[in-house]
Amino acid sequence: MRTRIAETVREVRDQTPLAGSITNTVTQNLVANAQLAFGGSAAMVYMPDEARGIVQAGRAFYINAGTILPIYEQSVVAGMDEAHSQHKPWVLDPVAVGLGELRSSLLRQAKQYPPTIIRCNASEAIALAGLWELNAGNAEGHARGVDSCDSVDSAYASAISLARCTGEVVAVSGEVDLVTDGKTVIYCTGGSPLMEKITGSGCALGGVTAVCAAVSDPLSAALTASLAFDVAGKNAAEKPEVHGPGSFQVAFLDELYTLSPEEISSADFRVEQVSE
Amino acid sequence: MRTRIAETVREVRDQTPLAGSITNTVTQNLVANAQLAFGGSAAMVYMPDEARGIVQAGRAFYINAGTILPIYEQSVVAGMDEAHSQHKPWVLDPVAVGLGELRSSLLRQAKQYPPTIIRCNASEAIALAGLWELNAGNAEGHARGVDSCDSVDSAYASAISLARCTGEVVAVSGEVDLVTDGKTVIYCTGGSPLMEKITGSGCALGGVTAVCAAVSDPLSAALTASLAFDVAGKNAAEKPEVHGPGSFQVAFLDELYTLSPEEISSADFRVEQVSE
Amino acid sequence: MRTRIAETVREVRDQTPLAGSITNTVTQNLVANAQLAFGGSAAMVYMPDEARGIVQAGRAFYINAGTILPIYEQSVVAGMDEAHSQHKPWVLDPVAVGLGELRSSLLRQAKQYPPTIIRCNASEAIALAGLWELNAGNAEGHARGVDSCDSVDSAYASAISLARCTGEVVAVSGEVDLVTDGKTVIYCTGGSPLMEKITGSGCALGGVTAVCAAVSDPLSAALTASLAFDVAGKNAAEKPEVHGPGSFQVAFLDELYTLSPEEISSADFRVEQVSE
Repeated sequence: MRTRIAETVREVRDQTPLAGSITNTVTQNLVANAQLAFGGSAAMVYMPDEARGIVQAGRAFYINAGTILPIYEQSVVAGMDEAHSQHKPWVLDPVAVGLGELRSSLLRQAKQYPPTIIRCNASEAIALAGLWELNAGNAEGHARGVDSCDSVDSAYASAISLARCTGEVVAVSGEVDLVTDGKTVIYCTGGSPLMEKITGSGCALGGVTAVCAAVSDPLSAALTASLAFDVAGKNAAEKPEVHGPGSFQVAFLDELYTLSPEEISSADFRVEQVSE
Repeated sequence: MRTRIAETVREVRDQTPLAGSITNTVTQNLVANAQLAFGGSAAMVYMPDEARGIVQAGRAFYINAGTILPIYEQSVVAGMDEAHSQHKPWVLDPVAVGLGELRSSLLRQAKQYPPTIIRCNASEAIALAGLWELNAGNAEGHARGVDSCDSVDSAYASAISLARCTGEVVAVSGEVDLVTDGKTVIYCTGGSPLMEKITGSGCALGGVTAVCAAVSDPLSAALTASLAFDVAGKNAAEKPEVHGPGSFQVAFLDELYTLSPEEISSADFRVEQVSE
Repeated sequence: MRTRIAETVREVRDQTPLAGSITNTVTQNLVANAQLAFGGSAAMVYMPDEARGIVQAGRAFYINAGTILPIYEQSVVAGMDEAHSQHKPWVLDPVAVGLGELRSSLLRQAKQYPPTIIRCNASEAIALAGLWELNAGNAEGHARGVDSCDSVDSAYASAISLARCTGEVVAVSGEVDLVTDGKTVIYCTGGSPLMEKITGSGCALGGVTAVCAAVSDPLSAALTASLAFDVAGKNAAEKPEVHGPGSFQVAFLDELYTLSPEEISSADFRVEQVSE
C-alpha cells in the first residue's frame, strides 16, 4: 500500500494529469492552486458542453456542489454522465447537501452515475446516505451551512453504506480521516486545526483526490490525497513563519509542492477490516 | 461601549456564528477567509431557495452587490425578504451602486427590507442615499467602478439620512471610518493605505460585520468590525515581513485571527452626537 | 522604446486607470490584485449593460474567456461592441479556445471588434488563428484544457497573422514571450517556472496589460506588462522566503507593487523585424 502511495505521487508529478472541475466559486482558486502545486493540471467549467469536453480532455473529473448556479442543472448532469460513460474516474464533494432543491436533485441523481470517490465531511456523508435512502443515513443531516457538526466516527456506517452502494470509495475528512471501499477502513491523522480556518481546504482535497485518481486506483488515490493533506497541514502549521490562517495557507501550498513521495507514503495510517 | 466591543469579539470566537452571504465572485474567497479568521463561519449561495435556507441556518446574512448575475434578481430579494421576516440582522454592501439596471433595482428594493447595517465607501453612501431619494443623496454618486472618489466627510449627511431612513446603522469606511445610528457618529482611524491595494478589503469588512451582528447590537457590531480592520491593517502593515500587497494580505488575515478582544476594544475612536 | 516603457509604468501609478473586465471566476481575484498592485484599478462585471457601463467608466477593458457562463452570450458581445465603438483599448485572452460552442462563437465574433491586444499562450494563438480562418492557424489547436502544449516558436506565424488581421498587437507568453504588431517581433525572457504552478498568472498578465493599454500605445503596453511579469517573476523566485507556489504568489504581487519603472524598462528584450 505504501509503495502504491509513493507511486501515485510520482506519477502525478511526472504526468501532470488534467482533472477538470465544476466547482464552487468561493474556493476554486485554492482548488486549482492545490492541484497545480501537487503536480496536476486544473480547468474549471460551467457550461454543459464544456463539462463533457473537459471530461474528454482530462483523465479525471471533479464535481463540487458548493455554490449551485442555475446552469448546474444541465452541466453537472452532463459532467457526471460523460465521466460515467467514458469510464473516467470522478470525485464528488457533496458540499452542503440538504440545502436547496436543485442541489438535492443533482446529488440524488449522482447515485445513477456512481462517483469513483465521494469526498466529504462527516455531516455530508450522513446526509448523502440519507438522500440516497441508504439505511445508515439521515436525510436531515447535521450540517450547518458548509461545516460539519458530526464527528467522523458518527459517519462510519454512512460511509460504508455509500461505498457499498457505489462499489467505489468514500473519504470522510475531519480531525481523523476515514477512507473506505466498503470492506477496508483506513484511518489517517495529521493536519492542523488551522485547516478549518481557511475556506476550501476540503474542496482542495477533493481536487487533489481527482488528480490522484487520474493515475491510480480509487482507494490509493483517496488515501494518497488525504495523507498528503495531513502531512502538508501538519508541516505547515509547524513552520516558524506561520502565525495564523493567512500564512498557513501559503505554507500549505508550498508543502504540497515540496513534499516527497516518501514523506507522504510514510505518514501514519491504520487499516481495519469492516466487520460484517 | 469598549466593554461591549470586547464582548462581541469574545462571543464570535466562542460561538463561531454562521453569517451566510450572497457576495461577489471576485472577493468572496477573502470574505470567507476573513470571516473564518475572525472566528465566524461562512457560506455563500446564489440560488433563491438557498438564500432563504442559509438565512434560516445562520444568525446573520450579508448581501454584497459586487458582481450581479441574472439569478440575483430573485435570490437577492429572497435573501432580503427572509432576513427581514425572520428578524435576522443583515448587512448590505451596495458595491458600485449606480452601475446597471438590475443592480439599481435590487438596491432600490433594499429600502423595503431595511438592512441592519449598510457598509460602504463614501461614494456608495452618497449614491445609495440618492437612489433612495433621500435629500442628502445624489443619485449620480461619484463612484468610478468600485472605488470611492469621495471622502468620508462628504458622505456625512448621506450616512445620517440612510441611518434615519432604516432606523438602523450605517458604516462608511475610508481613511477615517464613520459609523452612525443617525443620532451618534463614531469615527475610527487606523488601517493602512495597503488595504486599498488588495481587492475586497471592504467586502471582507462587510462579511466580518455580519459575523459580529450575529452576536451583538448593530452599532457595536459595526464598530467592532471597523476597529478590528483598523487595528489588523495597521499591525499588518508594520510587520517586517510585509513588503507589498501580497504579504500584507497574508499578515492581515493572521492579525484578524490573533488580535485579542482588548487590542480591538482599546483602539482609537471618537464619539460625537449629531447636531440637529 | 525603453523610455516609453518606463513612462507607461509611471503613468499607471500616477493615474490609477480603471480597466474593467469580464474575466473568469477562478482567477479574477488574482487579476484584480495584480492590477491594483501594479497601480491600476479593477472592476469585474457579468451583466450586458454593466459591461457597457464599465467600458464607459474605464479607460481600457479586458475580456478573458476562462469560465464561460450563459450570460456571456450577451455581455461579452456588449463589452466588445462598446469598447470598439468608443475607441477604447481592449485586451482579449482567448483562454481554452476550442472548448465549447458558446466560447467558440464569442471568440469568432471577436474578429469583428478587433482586440487592441490579444494576450494568450502558444496553443491559444494557433487555435484562435485557426478559428479566424487565417492561414497560419489550426482550428484544432493543441490545448489541453487551459494549458499550452505548444512552444512560443510554433505560434510565430499565427501571432503575426493575428496581428495583421486586427492591425493591432499580439502577445504570446511562455518560457520566452513574443510581442508583435505584425511588423516587429519582440522577445522577452525572465519569469520563473513557478508562474505555471499558480493559476491565473496569464490571466493576471492580461489584466495588467489592459491597465497599461489605458495609458500607452498597444505595443508599449503589451511589452511593458510582459517585462513587468518577467522581472517580477524572476525576482520573486529568487527571494529567500519563497519555497513554493504559495510564497511565490505572495512575493510576486509584492514585486509588481515595488518594481521601479527603470527595473522594468531595463529588462532584457530583443527586437526583430518580420521578414516578409
